[in-house]
Amino acid sequence: MRIYDIIDKKRRGLALTQQEIDFFVRGYTAGDIADYHMSALLMAICINGMTDEETAILTEKMASSGDMLDLSRFGDGSVDKHSTGGVGDKTTLVIAPIVASLGCTVCKLSGRGLGHTGGTLDKLESIPGCRIDHAPEEFMKIASLCGLSVCGAGANIAPADKKMYALRDVTATVSSIPLIVSSIMSKKLAGGAKSIVLDVKIGSGAFMKTLEDAKELANRMVSVGRLNGRRVSAVITNMDYPLGYCIGNSLEVAEAVSLLKGEKRDSGLYEVCVTLASEMVALSKSMSVSEARSLVEETVSNGNAYKKFLEWISLQGGDVSVFDDLDAFSGAKYQTTLLSPADGFIASADAEGMGISAMMLGAGRQSKDDHIDPTAGVIQLKRVGDRVEKGDPLAIFRSSSVPDHSHSHARWLQSLSFTEEQPPSLPLVYEIIR
Amino acid sequence: MRIYDIIDKKRRGLALTQQEIDFFVRGYTAGDIADYHMSALLMAICINGMTDEETAILTEKMASSGDMLDLSRFGDGSVDKHSTGGVGDKTTLVIAPIVASLGCTVCKLSGRGLGHTGGTLDKLESIPGCRIDHAPEEFMKIASLCGLSVCGAGANIAPADKKMYALRDVTATVSSIPLIVSSIMSKKLAGGAKSIVLDVKIGSGAFMKTLEDAKELANRMVSVGRLNGRRVSAVITNMDYPLGYCIGNSLEVAEAVSLLKGEKRDSGLYEVCVTLASEMVALSKSMSVSEARSLVEETVSNGNAYKKFLEWISLQGGDVSVFDDLDAFSGAKYQTTLLSPADGFIASADAEGMGISAMMLGAGRQSKDDHIDPTAGVIQLKRVGDRVEKGDPLAIFRSSSVPDHSHSHARWLQSLSFTEEQPPSLPLVYEIIR
Repeated sequence: MRIYDIIDKKRRGLALTQQEIDFFVRGYTAGDIADYHMSALLMAICINGMTDEETAILTEKMASSGDMLDLSRFGDGSVDKHSTGGVGDKTTLVIAPIVASLGCTVCKLSGRGLGHTGGTLDKLESIPGCRIDHAPEEFMKIASLCGLSVCGAGANIAPADKKMYALRDVTATVSSIPLIVSSIMSKKLAGGAKSIVLDVKIGSGAFMKTLEDAKELANRMVSVGRLNGRRVSAVITNMDYPLGYCIGNSLEVAEAVSLLKGEKRDSGLYEVCVTLASEMVALSKSMSVSEARSLVEETVSNGNAYKKFLEWISLQGGDVSVFDDLDAFSGAKYQTTLLSPADGFIASADAEGMGISAMMLGAGRQSKDDHIDPTAGVIQLKRVGDRVEKGDPLAIFRSSSVPDHSHSHARWLQSLSFTEEQPPSLPLVYEIIR
Repeated sequence: MRIYDIIDKKRRGLALTQQEIDFFVRGYTAGDIADYHMSALLMAICINGMTDEETAILTEKMASSGDMLDLSRFGDGSVDKHSTGGVGDKTTLVIAPIVASLGCTVCKLSGRGLGHTGGTLDKLESIPGCRIDHAPEEFMKIASLCGLSVCGAGANIAPADKKMYALRDVTATVSSIPLIVSSIMSKKLAGGAKSIVLDVKIGSGAFMKTLEDAKELANRMVSVGRLNGRRVSAVITNMDYPLGYCIGNSLEVAEAVSLLKGEKRDSGLYEVCVTLASEMVALSKSMSVSEARSLVEETVSNGNAYKKFLEWISLQGGDVSVFDDLDAFSGAKYQTTLLSPADGFIASADAEGMGISAMMLGAGRQSKDDHIDPTAGVIQLKRVGDRVEKGDPLAIFRSSSVPDHSHSHARWLQSLSFTEEQPPSLPLVYEIIR
């Protein structure tokens, strides 16, 4: 078999066989296939596409290029969630304890923030003592004890994806549905969960800008997961503005804790979390979604989900006493309040711009080696649809390393638009693919 | 400007600007743009195409990446010919003296054989003393003296094309019309001639297999040449079987000499040469093709073309006395005769297979550094459409370095098919694009 013939076949728009896909994934990962070969092949895939069957095979080959977590000890109960990424997305911190408190097992490999704001690992690390670097056996032991653990994905999870993604990133071949699907789903397959719920974001702060694109991506991820023997559903949710009130690591942990304590349920975050958690419970326990939803709402109301959260964080080494005073936990050295420059309704709030504004405070990384300030971030006081008068407080900015918040304020204001009339409200959940 | 954005634009099927094309041609030639960037871009061009305007710009940028011959001293009279390549193609040796004898100037950069058989340079080198390595000034002086010179293209003719072609060759991006057009035409532009006649071959022994593909290629080369200020026409000719009687270097020189002496005009080679030469004369002298054709036929008949050939070869250092005895000139140490294994008409003769058969005798190069035996080759005694009886001589095989011709015989026979009924005759010239 020759890489030339595989490139030529895909250039002509033909479907590749299992043997051909295996050949190029293995060869490229091992360094036997050159970057210039791979980039030509990736461009041909990008333009000519791949069938669901090809994408499913590619996904499996990328997953098995490295370590595969064996969660068979948890039977059918293991469940994972993946979000395509957004600003203010702290859903994992809320959902994982909810579903674990209902008897599902979340043994989840997670990532650092790739965009402007921190990832789940960064958020967990804002809790004093909380570790995310457990060895696989320790990681699974925590899940055995409390039904829940979250750990950093080691270097050997889907190494083929890492190498291919780095090349796609510099050759304009990121925006290909089969390549996006295989990149995401290979890591989910390697993560080992039997059931997977996908949170596909659309809007100004998401990779997918239209419902049509998001549905295409969601449908293909569901197909590819099922072709690889997993139970999968996908929820398409709004990312036209940040999810919930807070952006920033300890601020988002504090917001998640409030929600689990039964507070601040009006931001839309609660609805999104309940929707995703219900799908996860329904999939992994093979029950109806309405039945699952009742259980989810109950476990939050009766405090079981919050108890599970505390148990989990303790087992991962975190000091849960900090949650007794959330203001102190998320407090920072410098705090400023941004006032509204105008009268009117907030018509739109560009999530990406707001993420960048928070990053300027130290809440995210501009480059891979940047240091994150866990206390840095923004608390929204006014959100899309709210009426404000000139001079009203719009948001609170916090940082312990950046005293001057003026650039961050300016970026935040750039992200807002005001109108005279109340804007129509956008749906939180667009569609669910089961 | 970033190569990423240029790749992304072409991936989306958009047309690139002059600045963008200039950027990637310069950058890649200089080594500032990596192979993996270029192969992604080439694949995007290969699949999404290029307009004639983009292709014309690409061609000009590739041409100007190296030395450009300045033929302005020859005014509008400079004329070049390019063949897309075939087996037994000795047309340059016949046509160049014809058109030079009519007052046109052929100052032609030529190549070694790329395929199985020798190129024009290899054929010229089979003439004792004949040099093809003149410095540019000497090369143009010969053309000033006799209206004609043929020289090897130096390393710095279209270096961008050399580097891009090497990458295309290993990334399955050779078969792209805009890339083929720019590769061929960049070298023609660098060659400096005001008028260019293209001989686009189709058939089993050519790169283009169908009339439709050949017309597409021919039309686009004509457009791109004209967009760059050249007079261009294209002739689509047959390469289903070898052109003329002989394959091999000194054998082809001898056949060209015979033709110029007025002999062996029945093989189709004469008709193809007269057609191409008439187009060249018509273009460069701005006259009708019928008028040009009368002049071409006359200059062969009255011996002026052959006189011009002798003058030219002498000026390039060749010993023209060898043409007094063509049998001796093309004679070889070993000679065998292949007999027909069957009765019937020769229905087809695969030019590529026959070229390989001649290569096996030493007439061509299997790899770049192979040594060519100038005397090696095949004289066809029976050609497509001829009736043969079992045991009739089909062809004479000659070589001075390979005593055993049996493998070459076998390859030749594999290339032939026989039928009971006379096969329909194929056109020599399919179409002319002016």
